[in-house]
Amino acid sequence: MNAPLRIAEIFGPTIQGEGALIGEATVFVRAGGCDYRCVWCDSLHAVDSENRHQWAKMTPQQVWDRVHDLSGGVPLTVSISGGNPAIQDFAPLIDLGHAQGYRFACETQGSIAKPWFADLDMLVLSPKPPSSKEFVDWAAFDACIAAAGAANTVLKIVIFDDTDYQWARDVATRYPALPLFIQPGNPEVDPSQPVDLNAATARLEWLVNKASTDRWFTPRILPQLHVLIWGNKRGV
Amino acid sequence: MNAPLRIAEIFGPTIQGEGALIGEATVFVRAGGCDYRCVWCDSLHAVDSENRHQWAKMTPQQVWDRVHDLSGGVPLTVSISGGNPAIQDFAPLIDLGHAQGYRFACETQGSIAKPWFADLDMLVLSPKPPSSKEFVDWAAFDACIAAAGAANTVLKIVIFDDTDYQWARDVATRYPALPLFIQPGNPEVDPSQPVDLNAATARLEWLVNKASTDRWFTPRILPQLHVLIWGNKRGV
Repeated sequence: MNAPLRIAEIFGPTIQGEGALIGEATVFVRAGGCDYRCVWCDSLHAVDSENRHQWAKMTPQQVWDRVHDLSGGVPLTVSISGGNPAIQDFAPLIDLGHAQGYRFACETQGSIAKPWFADLDMLVLSPKPPSSKEFVDWAAFDACIAAAGAANTVLKIVIFDDTDYQWARDVATRYPALPLFIQPGNPEVDPSQPVDLNAATARLEWLVNKASTDRWFTPRILPQLHVLIWGNKRGV
Repeated sequence: MNAPLRIAEIFGPTIQGEGALIGEATVFVRAGGCDYRCVWCDSLHAVDSENRHQWAKMTPQQVWDRVHDLSGGVPLTVSISGGNPAIQDFAPLIDLGHAQGYRFACETQGSIAKPWFADLDMLVLSPKPPSSKEFVDWAAFDACIAAAGAANTVLKIVIFDDTDYQWARDVATRYPALPLFIQPGNPEVDPSQPVDLNAATARLEWLVNKASTDRWFTPRILPQLHVLIWGNKRGV
């Protein structure tokens, strides 16, 4: 029997708001629990263990039933996020969905490698830059790439400042074969406050101008679409 | 000797603001002249023949020199747009760029097929929906796909209203193998006026909600990033 999963929320269908699958229809399965505590985390409700009693204990079948219900049985991409979903075992969920033609992407910081990464259609590794006050264990990170296979792995880096930017350039040099997506950091993470759209688009312009001036043309530069549309509201 | 090209503008590096290459570093080469006149055209300066005396006559080598200069000789994707670039012969420009590792994407409505479509790294076919007051010649459109090869062709459809939306669904049914990108239409095209960001993101939300409700999960739904960042300003 499969161990239950700790799930912070399941919602959708909506669009993937960022990175390689931006704009793609998806249902999110957000795992509860994280081994990081980034200072600017926008998903503390799935990270901070003080919220753990709000996380549902669900079997993979129960999670799958909910995804199937939300999507009306029409296949789409399921986005497994968190928190850090790599703490738990999502292999049974992926098996259930694949059997019905669904695809699976998973986003993790790359601190824990799991065999089930090999089952994913896409692994999004999001190493945390210096502004997070976390540190990347590159041996663990490389193990994640090895587990998923480089062909199914992409990188996503959030950039808050010049230090993060230079760090992202170094990461890009380290992994020249992996597609890289960068996005400006969002310092406005209070779900009860509206997002300043002008400030959000100005941050994107800052990053575009910086990379263009440096003729750093390899990354794709994208915003967080969901923040532009819904602010920091949850469940969309 | 190659015939000169009529060029409305060359600018960049910036990011591709929409469609399959959204967020990718690019230099735009905007061809002057168009066989369409969509009622909501956002590039009339490259379409309306009253502007034709402002279009530069440039040899492919001159265009290439400008692209090379703007990008500092660092390869990126060149986006050939218009107007309708398929009126002219971009094969010599593509040859010059490919020789130095640059990639080429071209966007056209699909009314004119050209042999040089086969040289492109990506052909973006953007059939115009009913709100444009133009009409698609599907035989010509199919000839464009045949010229480029289906593997290098993607579809992009602008959607202003429910009629356009239903039309896009029919087009998707017609071309199930081609990746489809849809985006809300932008009724604010006056470069002298600021764009209402709340209205722009509300249009994106409308389209996301509509497709989600219908469980139409195949298209990617994206905004025009450049409009969010720069409004309708030209040359960015």
